[in-house]
Amino acid sequence: MRMVDLITKKRDGHELTKEEIDFIINGYTKGDIPDYQMATMLMAIYFNSMSKEEISALTNAMINSGETIDLSQIEGVKVDKHSTGGVGDKITLIVAPLVASLGIPVAKMSGRGLGHTGGTIDKLESIQGFNVELTKEQFINQVNTHKIALVGQSGNLVPADKKLYALRDITGTVNSIPLIASSIMSKKIAMGADAIVLDVKTGNGAFMKTLEDSKALAQEMVDIGKSLNRKTIAVITDMNQPLGYEVGNANEIKEVIQILKGEYIEDLVEISLAIAENMVLLSKMYEGENIKEKLKLQIENGQALNKFREFIKIQGGNENIVDNVNLLPQAKYHFEIKSLNSGYINKLEAEKIGHVAMLLGAGRKKKEDNIDHSAGVTLKKKVGDYVKENEVLAILHCNFEIHENIKNELLSAYSFTNKPVNKNPYVYEIIS
Amino acid sequence: MRMVDLITKKRDGHELTKEEIDFIINGYTKGDIPDYQMATMLMAIYFNSMSKEEISALTNAMINSGETIDLSQIEGVKVDKHSTGGVGDKITLIVAPLVASLGIPVAKMSGRGLGHTGGTIDKLESIQGFNVELTKEQFINQVNTHKIALVGQSGNLVPADKKLYALRDITGTVNSIPLIASSIMSKKIAMGADAIVLDVKTGNGAFMKTLEDSKALAQEMVDIGKSLNRKTIAVITDMNQPLGYEVGNANEIKEVIQILKGEYIEDLVEISLAIAENMVLLSKMYEGENIKEKLKLQIENGQALNKFREFIKIQGGNENIVDNVNLLPQAKYHFEIKSLNSGYINKLEAEKIGHVAMLLGAGRKKKEDNIDHSAGVTLKKKVGDYVKENEVLAILHCNFEIHENIKNELLSAYSFTNKPVNKNPYVYEIIS
Repeated sequence: MRMVDLITKKRDGHELTKEEIDFIINGYTKGDIPDYQMATMLMAIYFNSMSKEEISALTNAMINSGETIDLSQIEGVKVDKHSTGGVGDKITLIVAPLVASLGIPVAKMSGRGLGHTGGTIDKLESIQGFNVELTKEQFINQVNTHKIALVGQSGNLVPADKKLYALRDITGTVNSIPLIASSIMSKKIAMGADAIVLDVKTGNGAFMKTLEDSKALAQEMVDIGKSLNRKTIAVITDMNQPLGYEVGNANEIKEVIQILKGEYIEDLVEISLAIAENMVLLSKMYEGENIKEKLKLQIENGQALNKFREFIKIQGGNENIVDNVNLLPQAKYHFEIKSLNSGYINKLEAEKIGHVAMLLGAGRKKKEDNIDHSAGVTLKKKVGDYVKENEVLAILHCNFEIHENIKNELLSAYSFTNKPVNKNPYVYEIIS
Repeated sequence: MRMVDLITKKRDGHELTKEEIDFIINGYTKGDIPDYQMATMLMAIYFNSMSKEEISALTNAMINSGETIDLSQIEGVKVDKHSTGGVGDKITLIVAPLVASLGIPVAKMSGRGLGHTGGTIDKLESIQGFNVELTKEQFINQVNTHKIALVGQSGNLVPADKKLYALRDITGTVNSIPLIASSIMSKKIAMGADAIVLDVKTGNGAFMKTLEDSKALAQEMVDIGKSLNRKTIAVITDMNQPLGYEVGNANEIKEVIQILKGEYIEDLVEISLAIAENMVLLSKMYEGENIKEKLKLQIENGQALNKFREFIKIQGGNENIVDNVNLLPQAKYHFEIKSLNSGYINKLEAEKIGHVAMLLGAGRKKKEDNIDHSAGVTLKKKVGDYVKENEVLAILHCNFEIHENIKNELLSAYSFTNKPVNKNPYVYEIIS
């Protein structure tokens, strides 16, 4: 088999066989196939897409490119949850203790943030003492005993994806549904998931800007799950503005605690309940019951918050933050940004808010960068709100004097209109 | 400017500016832009093509990537001739002395053969003593005095094309009209041509298999010429079977001499006259005259043959071969290949004949290979001929005992039918 012939085959719109896809992914992972041939193949896939069979074979080949995690020693159905990425996205930290509080095992690996999106692991590390590195045995024992564990990614999982993603990033081939779908699903399956709930974001702050593209991506991932015997449900949710009011690390933990204490922050609650409901469904532990009501009750009766406290404690963190959020890292400065306009907010660009938070120190420009857990943005106004000139739109938390350009970028994230604005739905569709 | 943004721009169907194309070609030639990004760009160009302005800018950037040859010291219009490549293509060696015999300067650089196609320089080197390396001064003086010189490529001409071609070859991006057209035209212009006649082959043995594609390529090259002030005419000619009856090196020189002596080998004569006529036209030396008749007369009166003899002599070759072709290298073995079928030949695949000639030693698999000038194929039957079982189809000339597979490949190049076969035209169209 010669890579150039396979490139030509894909270029001309023909379907690659499972053997050919294995050859490509093995060869590229080992370094036998050079970057320039792989990059050309990726662009041919960008243009000609892939069939369901090809995408399934690609996902499988990526899983087989490295180690996989065996969670069979954990009792019950291991349901994983994945978000395609957004700004202020703290849903994992809400649903993990909420679902675990029902006795369903939540054994999760998460990533760190890069660019305008944050990472669950970074958020957890804003809690003093919190340890995101457990041995495999600790991880499994903790889930069996406490039903919850959340750690950083370790091991040589899906090395093909690491290499491919780096190449896609610099060759204009990131935005291809078969490549995105196989990248996400290969990682989830390599991490040992029995079933998967996907939070597929849609809107100007998401990877997929249109509902149509988001649905196509969701369907592709659900189909991959089906073909590889992992029950998969995708929930399509709004990302036309940041989720909740807090964007950063420590301040997002604070907002998670607010939710678990029963505060009704509409978007966070509705999306969390939709995701958690589907995780419970896939666990098969509560069939035939009104799951959403059951979940609401776990918040009302304090069980979800108790599970969060327990979770922090067993992973070495200071669980007292749950009762006193002032124990979380605090920034030195808090700058109020006031509106230059009066009117109804009809747009609040999530990417810009994420970028501002990154500039304040809450995120990383490059992988190697350190982050400042106390930095971030608190939004005081969101889409649909009426604002008067000079009212505070947002507060910037950081440990240095800010430049005018950061302030301007924040202001530029908001757009105004004279007429009242209809809000978007929070959950658009569920694909299974 | 970032290459990844330019890839994305081209990928999304937008037009690149002249400055962007200069950035890409400069950066790639210097090594600042890596192969994997260039390869992805090439695939994006493959899918989204390029506008006339982009192709013209690309050609110009490629010319400027290296040295260019200044032929201004040669008197008259320097008309170059280029073939897109075929099997048994000895047209250059016929038209060069024919046109020069009319006093029109023919200052030509040619290449060596690779794969199933031969190279003019290789063919000339089958003449004992023939020197294909002249200094720039020798080259210019020879054309001014004798109106003809033919040398191998020297100097650092169009380095961008060398690098790009090598990359295209291994990334499935050879077959793109903008890339082929700019590659050919940049080389011709860098070699100092004032005007260009292109022999664009069409058919199963050509790069472009369909007349439609061949016309599109021809039009693109004519347009590039126009945009860069080089009058360009493209003659679209048949390559559904080898040209003439000889495929190799010494045996092709023999066939050139036959033509220059007045033998009427239909395809070679008709195509040579069409090419030569347009070269004469572009030279502007014989306007308003019946050029084709004039050219025929140069063959009838021996002037074309005399010019060929003179040309060989001044470049150090043994000119006696013109009168005694047995002085050309002779192979040790001559194997007759007999037909297994009776019928009319309706197909004679040029690529297979070229490949057989290569296996016999007449061509190179890799650039570094040596060739055997005495090796080759003599076709005894071509498309339209009626053949009886056991009649000789072809003779293989070589210096070793041949394997059965070579014989079988030659036989497989022929197809037969019971009904008489209409021949293809030799010249399809002229685009200017």
